[in-house]
Amino acid sequence: MTGFDYQNLLVDIATEVERLYGQGKVAAYIPELENIDPKQFAMTLTFLDQDKYSTGVSQQRFSIQSISKVFTLMLAVSEIGEKVYQRVGVEPSGDPFNSLVQLEHEKGLPRNPFINAGAIVVSDVLLSIYDDPLKQLLNFVHDISGSDQVYFDKAVAKSEQLTGHRNYALANFLKSFDRIENPIEDVLDVYFHQCALAMTCEELSAAFLLLANHGKSVFSSNAYLTPSQAKRINSIMQTCGFYDQAGEFTFRVGLPGKSGVGGGIAAIKPGEFSIAVWSPELNQYGNSVLGMKALELFTTATGKSIF
Amino acid sequence: MTGFDYQNLLVDIATEVERLYGQGKVAAYIPELENIDPKQFAMTLTFLDQDKYSTGVSQQRFSIQSISKVFTLMLAVSEIGEKVYQRVGVEPSGDPFNSLVQLEHEKGLPRNPFINAGAIVVSDVLLSIYDDPLKQLLNFVHDISGSDQVYFDKAVAKSEQLTGHRNYALANFLKSFDRIENPIEDVLDVYFHQCALAMTCEELSAAFLLLANHGKSVFSSNAYLTPSQAKRINSIMQTCGFYDQAGEFTFRVGLPGKSGVGGGIAAIKPGEFSIAVWSPELNQYGNSVLGMKALELFTTATGKSIF
Amino acid sequence: MTGFDYQNLLVDIATEVERLYGQGKVAAYIPELENIDPKQFAMTLTFLDQDKYSTGVSQQRFSIQSISKVFTLMLAVSEIGEKVYQRVGVEPSGDPFNSLVQLEHEKGLPRNPFINAGAIVVSDVLLSIYDDPLKQLLNFVHDISGSDQVYFDKAVAKSEQLTGHRNYALANFLKSFDRIENPIEDVLDVYFHQCALAMTCEELSAAFLLLANHGKSVFSSNAYLTPSQAKRINSIMQTCGFYDQAGEFTFRVGLPGKSGVGGGIAAIKPGEFSIAVWSPELNQYGNSVLGMKALELFTTATGKSIF
Amino acid sequence: MTGFDYQNLLVDIATEVERLYGQGKVAAYIPELENIDPKQFAMTLTFLDQDKYSTGVSQQRFSIQSISKVFTLMLAVSEIGEKVYQRVGVEPSGDPFNSLVQLEHEKGLPRNPFINAGAIVVSDVLLSIYDDPLKQLLNFVHDISGSDQVYFDKAVAKSEQLTGHRNYALANFLKSFDRIENPIEDVLDVYFHQCALAMTCEELSAAFLLLANHGKSVFSSNAYLTPSQAKRINSIMQTCGFYDQAGEFTFRVGLPGKSGVGGGIAAIKPGEFSIAVWSPELNQYGNSVLGMKALELFTTATGKSIF
Repeated sequence: MTGFDYQNLLVDIATEVERLYGQGKVAAYIPELENIDPKQFAMTLTFLDQDKYSTGVSQQRFSIQSISKVFTLMLAVSEIGEKVYQRVGVEPSGDPFNSLVQLEHEKGLPRNPFINAGAIVVSDVLLSIYDDPLKQLLNFVHDISGSDQVYFDKAVAKSEQLTGHRNYALANFLKSFDRIENPIEDVLDVYFHQCALAMTCEELSAAFLLLANHGKSVFSSNAYLTPSQAKRINSIMQTCGFYDQAGEFTFRVGLPGKSGVGGGIAAIKPGEFSIAVWSPELNQYGNSVLGMKALELFTTATGKSIF
Repeated sequence: MTGFDYQNLLVDIATEVERLYGQGKVAAYIPELENIDPKQFAMTLTFLDQDKYSTGVSQQRFSIQSISKVFTLMLAVSEIGEKVYQRVGVEPSGDPFNSLVQLEHEKGLPRNPFINAGAIVVSDVLLSIYDDPLKQLLNFVHDISGSDQVYFDKAVAKSEQLTGHRNYALANFLKSFDRIENPIEDVLDVYFHQCALAMTCEELSAAFLLLANHGKSVFSSNAYLTPSQAKRINSIMQTCGFYDQAGEFTFRVGLPGKSGVGGGIAAIKPGEFSIAVWSPELNQYGNSVLGMKALELFTTATGKSIF
Repeated sequence: MTGFDYQNLLVDIATEVERLYGQGKVAAYIPELENIDPKQFAMTLTFLDQDKYSTGVSQQRFSIQSISKVFTLMLAVSEIGEKVYQRVGVEPSGDPFNSLVQLEHEKGLPRNPFINAGAIVVSDVLLSIYDDPLKQLLNFVHDISGSDQVYFDKAVAKSEQLTGHRNYALANFLKSFDRIENPIEDVLDVYFHQCALAMTCEELSAAFLLLANHGKSVFSSNAYLTPSQAKRINSIMQTCGFYDQAGEFTFRVGLPGKSGVGGGIAAIKPGEFSIAVWSPELNQYGNSVLGMKALELFTTATGKSIF
Repeated sequence: MTGFDYQNLLVDIATEVERLYGQGKVAAYIPELENIDPKQFAMTLTFLDQDKYSTGVSQQRFSIQSISKVFTLMLAVSEIGEKVYQRVGVEPSGDPFNSLVQLEHEKGLPRNPFINAGAIVVSDVLLSIYDDPLKQLLNFVHDISGSDQVYFDKAVAKSEQLTGHRNYALANFLKSFDRIENPIEDVLDVYFHQCALAMTCEELSAAFLLLANHGKSVFSSNAYLTPSQAKRINSIMQTCGFYDQAGEFTFRVGLPGKSGVGGGIAAIKPGEFSIAVWSPELNQYGNSVLGMKALELFTTATGKSIF
């Protein structure tokens, strides 16, 4: 879209969405999230040619939380390919992200890799592959984001662990169905750390370019995923990426993406660009209020939805 | 895609998928479906400019079954707009299409308009609007398909009614939550008839052009839906159109679409084309075996997926 | 318990429980129940030798509602014996009395004959046995209660039918699992009429003597049930007779019994007596507030619990 | 029942039930249970006056497993009375003993103290009361059984812990609803040890006399429970003591009791006697095949059911 003034558009969107401050609530289950200044907004748009536009605090690091489930899935698929889908399904769940009910009815097979149970199984997959999965994950994120500044926020990981009874329950439940190969403490250590990845909007947008670029890093040129593998991950994001608001996001934004309770959202348009937003206030479904609106305004203004 | 030989592609796809005969089973719950010759295949591709390509028995009429849920939804939205979504949700269900469990947990609000409970509520919406909703529905389908040959197969409608205990249960259950305004017999009469719409692949492909054309009929130029309303319906098809295989279809085909247990599937690429396939043998999820494969081959060959 | 002054005890209990007026709410789903004067109480104790003690409006007829499920079960068992338990289970449900969830998980087999689904199946059993099951049921109740004044309240039956969407849903759902042999309208006609049986406390107490007397009517000497069959029904009352308060009733009263939303409760002590109470105000579980308390006071005062 | 030859009856019953060897399966989830000789049977009947009759290997110790849930409940009630029932319900569950579904629907409140979740909460109650709850539990069992030979089988406790993923899941799930006060490892240590209590039929029968004797130990004369507290526990055993076979046991045996997957069953008749049986082969519901039959034959022969 030659000549389109993306920089101006992003600034206009920021002005528009900042009117929504106060409509949501910051995640409160751990102090590290609860104590964040809610009135923050950032947005970065990166094209495949690395042309980049940002507004707001786009170099402020935040806890990406569930967005990390996309990274661990990518890493697992890059190593063992479609076999990952023998251990987690690819269908939307219709139940809360940390529900045990559906697991019980389906003999412990998680519906998809973006509910907690599914992400825990993916953590287990990584543990079975690597001696040091956290180091490998960090290297991977450094490589695909083109930034070696991304790190695990140890305080967040520790708080996640201390309050993570539901996740301990899920992991033990999965183990009771023989869905976990490694010791539960080790699996959850990977899981709690991945949730604690701290990134900026610029880094996040850069990292998701891999999925817009059919599986190939634009920075290192490493082809981590085949085009088909990238397409699969994009389609799972489309149907399962937004907790119980996947249908709403598909309509309002119309791009495959993934959100986290830290207030971040990353989305892509295949073959074109990656976009990341961050703002800590969440709606009742756990998605960023300003982030959802900003992405909606972006696709409305540019027509760059997939529908 | 100037110069692309779509006719040859469709013929090649037909040859390829016909090897799959015998891998699925024809729907057996009513004699009208059970007694159909399973070894039939048809496919029609129609572009917005009405450029049309067909292969197989594309002028053979079949029972479109659940695909009709898209037509009644379009008609209801064309009349009362977004108010429809106060009566049915837009999120995928994760439960079988005719489950009562989820309804019970959500006080009778159907998760989306493509599960049976949701479609029954949409039938009720039409009954509250029209004196003769079936006549209006037929007129609508005639108009958007450019064919006045489409009809309700009375024998199918009768069989649906006689075996429809689960649907009677759903309708009464909805009524117990005050989710139905009209007499149950009347509502189900609409519902059973819409399922019994008999169409050819050519007619079905033509009718779905409306959704590819942002809500405007390419035949009559009537703008039944706003672009936003059409986009909403497309996004619901993407996340909820294939029973418990929405994620799989999103990946393998990557187009918004809807299937029926008669063996039909219709899908669209916004702004470009509509495509319909038909073959009666179903996989375990109730989707056409040859139809799924044919659409997958089509998007793989042309690159025309939305991902 | 020679010389025990039961008459005085009943009068004392009535005085005590009448302080509870206003703590519950009359059933409001049909006008015939909603319009009843809530401040009424009756209690009748009948020993096997027909020695009888009453207090309050013990000759006032009321709608026995779910208590009738015991009569239809007795009648079905008297005809086809243990075969009844091939069509309904004997275990408590842990779910609301008209839940569809559990049915869905157990392929339509009702957990026990005292949830609505189970009672509907028992109605179906009677329809398969008799040309005129309602006439047979009435004859049976006349015979075991020693009163030919018991009747079906047609206005109540009609109201039950008009508001009975949940029961229509249950019956259709059961039919979809092939658990019902007769036309649904006929089955529900039996069901809605049995719920509308109008009896006095004296008649109800008399009728339950059959179960205290090991299956033999104390009036006609007809042995409707074997001792084992009577014991089975008593044990089902113990574990399933009080909706989601069976455990509470077992503890507080300690007698097998059955309640109805009309405000009646009937209970027995095997080999000794039958006791019936009525008062229309219900607690949150659908059991009579004064009735529960009166029975608790009775067993506490007399020591006549089974525990 | 003066002059009744109980010794002969027990011997006859043993002869009768031993024909059933081979109809069930020994619990196989831990080696200590799996490796037990399945062809063993023992039965002890003890009257309140300590008149005692035994047959079979009645001095052979076995793992009492879930029967221990009655002991911990008694101990908790003896300390804090009815407050225990603010932390666990008293209603039957209708779901498998270790289901998480019901917990999720009821915000983590266990339905009763005899499902695993409920027993884990009772363990937590004991931990909040005592510095050394296992020592207190052992003292209590020694006192009420009149035997200081009862012990925790450490090998069983260790195996329970190693395979107890479902119980870890339950405990963490309860913790996520704030239903557990102490560290999960400590709570489960109590829980796994109590399951590993090793007792003989004679000791078990002796220990249950407390409940037949309205809460007072016949050995030490300590009144651990009030009559009302004992009645409450008896009524919970009646409705919840046999996993998903409580209704069946209530009918066939007609006594309040509790079974364990070690093959033991203990039951009582209030004011009269306590009876314990043991035989390792289990039916599909996890109850001892020979044990169930032996108790049925006993109540049939003596008429000593509560119904």
